[in-house]
Amino acid sequence: MQEDNFKVTPWEVSGRVDYKKLIQQFGTQKISKSILEEISRISQGRLHVMLRRDIFFSHRDLDLILKDYREKRGFFLYTGRAPSMGMHIGHLVPFLFTKWLQDVFNVNVYIEITDDEKFMRNQEYTLKQTSEWAHQNILDIIAVGFNPDKTFIFKDTEYIRNMYPLVTSIAKKLNFSQIKATFGMDASSNIGILFYPAIQIFPTMFEKKRCLIPAAIDQDPYWRLQRDLAESLGYYKAAEIHSKFLPPLASSDGKMSSSIPESAVYLSDPPKTVEKKIMKYAFSGGQATTELQRKLGADLRVDVPYQWLYYIFEENDGEMQKITEDYSSGRMLTGEVKKILAQKVNLLLEDHRKNREKAEENYTRFLYDGKLAKQMWEKIHS
Amino acid sequence: MQEDNFKVTPWEVSGRVDYKKLIQQFGTQKISKSILEEISRISQGRLHVMLRRDIFFSHRDLDLILKDYREKRGFFLYTGRAPSMGMHIGHLVPFLFTKWLQDVFNVNVYIEITDDEKFMRNQEYTLKQTSEWAHQNILDIIAVGFNPDKTFIFKDTEYIRNMYPLVTSIAKKLNFSQIKATFGMDASSNIGILFYPAIQIFPTMFEKKRCLIPAAIDQDPYWRLQRDLAESLGYYKAAEIHSKFLPPLASSDGKMSSSIPESAVYLSDPPKTVEKKIMKYAFSGGQATTELQRKLGADLRVDVPYQWLYYIFEENDGEMQKITEDYSSGRMLTGEVKKILAQKVNLLLEDHRKNREKAEENYTRFLYDGKLAKQMWEKIHS
Repeated sequence: MQEDNFKVTPWEVSGRVDYKKLIQQFGTQKISKSILEEISRISQGRLHVMLRRDIFFSHRDLDLILKDYREKRGFFLYTGRAPSMGMHIGHLVPFLFTKWLQDVFNVNVYIEITDDEKFMRNQEYTLKQTSEWAHQNILDIIAVGFNPDKTFIFKDTEYIRNMYPLVTSIAKKLNFSQIKATFGMDASSNIGILFYPAIQIFPTMFEKKRCLIPAAIDQDPYWRLQRDLAESLGYYKAAEIHSKFLPPLASSDGKMSSSIPESAVYLSDPPKTVEKKIMKYAFSGGQATTELQRKLGADLRVDVPYQWLYYIFEENDGEMQKITEDYSSGRMLTGEVKKILAQKVNLLLEDHRKNREKAEENYTRFLYDGKLAKQMWEKIHS
Repeated sequence: MQEDNFKVTPWEVSGRVDYKKLIQQFGTQKISKSILEEISRISQGRLHVMLRRDIFFSHRDLDLILKDYREKRGFFLYTGRAPSMGMHIGHLVPFLFTKWLQDVFNVNVYIEITDDEKFMRNQEYTLKQTSEWAHQNILDIIAVGFNPDKTFIFKDTEYIRNMYPLVTSIAKKLNFSQIKATFGMDASSNIGILFYPAIQIFPTMFEKKRCLIPAAIDQDPYWRLQRDLAESLGYYKAAEIHSKFLPPLASSDGKMSSSIPESAVYLSDPPKTVEKKIMKYAFSGGQATTELQRKLGADLRVDVPYQWLYYIFEENDGEMQKITEDYSSGRMLTGEVKKILAQKVNLLLEDHRKNREKAEENYTRFLYDGKLAKQMWEKIHS
């Protein structure tokens, strides 16, 4: 039997991912045409580009989420972020999509900032560092445009007291063997990291409604544990909607990582840097010479600039179709595609920076005194 | 080599404990004559009965605690309780002694109520149960007579937010292998219990002073872990003063357990019950018949009523000496000794109940708004 030449776990993504196979391996569902049609109806025909282009491609119980919505039981959204020194374009994907879902369904969003996990997982980081990164990352998240009265952003180190009683109930149902098998821990793993999955699972129980988690598919194992125990605690199994991985700039394999600087475009990169990174590092599927490119066209499956346009940056389907045809046939050269991408990325980043400047003044609304935040601070979950 | 016929771990005490051997096994220090003399001086000659009688018999760094006291750097006391349905006489031992230390040295006392651990350790308990037990146990602890402005009693589930940042720093320094070896955990242990040692260790770092922990010697392994990591976090190694185990009523082996009802005298037992339990169940070292007892005398080493008098209830050294001579020589019968014990126990319990009735009105001072409690709630440890 041939071995898969890719690997997807919560701690490693490598190789060229075969998403069809991954759906089988993980036992999730492909997002069906009828689900897409229903979301399209609800969004009045303005289906998000990441749904139209199959970037969010897999799910668990998304059909039940839509049923709960139809039947007025409602649902809520949950996503999160392990703070890092800087956020890159890939980090924005789940937040952009979650914000769109919030707008379409008008639901609460909970965003967990896992400053505790980040600190405990990395020997070299201090809690002061991860706290400062948390603050900076939160500004980037706020800049995405969530509804400040329906969104609660919380740092684990701050909200722990309100969560802890129910977190202990979850912890009681998970043992070392399970955590080891699911997250690749071993006997040398520290006890904070062993405990942490209980904290990551808990926000799926913030409300007695079904929770929908938009996330890259490598996070699915966390939610499998949640789904095994949620009902025994009187809560719903978490529903999920899974995205593919935005390929890193410098290769078409794996996922973008913030630990390889040249492989990522940071939200703080100035326009010149963005242009230079894309022109210089973006992995091209084009041919070695202009002549060959004109003759043979580009291999779109491995071309990163093309994929970035496809995943996020060229929302216009007509334009995208044109690029697809021209680039694959050789009418367009890699340099032209890269230039289009650089312009689009810089447009988004300019917009983002403007929003980020205003984010600080909304900070306390999202964390402490907005309508939802206030409710959440008054609640001891138990 | 002969095997020891006793066992002392944080999760099991069995057999007739050889305390001399235990000091060697654990690598602790016997409390020396010069230490006793110094404490006697500080307490103006009123050395506590449990020190005079060698019940608190072993220590780590108690000499350094006394040095810190002499040199005005000060220290603080830390003890705790895993809430249970009812507290028995054995549970009082560390609290009675800690209160005496507080009076003598005029220092802060921190009392951790481990409602989280109790819940996570026992499959059958609910958090509601352990919370209710916590409340009841706290009333018993307050009744012991701690200084309400220098004592902070806290439940883990409530104080976690203030503790959590530094708890994560501790957790990061402990791995599964260490926890497994120290506490007898295994791969089927739940992740809450695996994480919990970080929470139990943390209060030793509540102040930047040396912490003294009065506890039965079976708790020592917890503090060994603390002593391995404390200095790397900028805190002192915890000092300890260790007690022997009050033997259970029904046998002279092991330690009193609240899970065998007849082996314990509960703080809530009415006088008649106390009398009946002692007369009926207390394990006697006396002879089978009055004639034999008159002739051979009692074996004091296994006689539980005698040991209870010796450990706690007969504080008068002259009286104790008399009982020792008369009982061992056969002039006293088991029934007489049991009667003295029953009277003494009932005196203490009557006193305790009176104090406990007034405890509820001081509850919030110890937990929230006394001088020390208030300070502690304003502090986020990090």
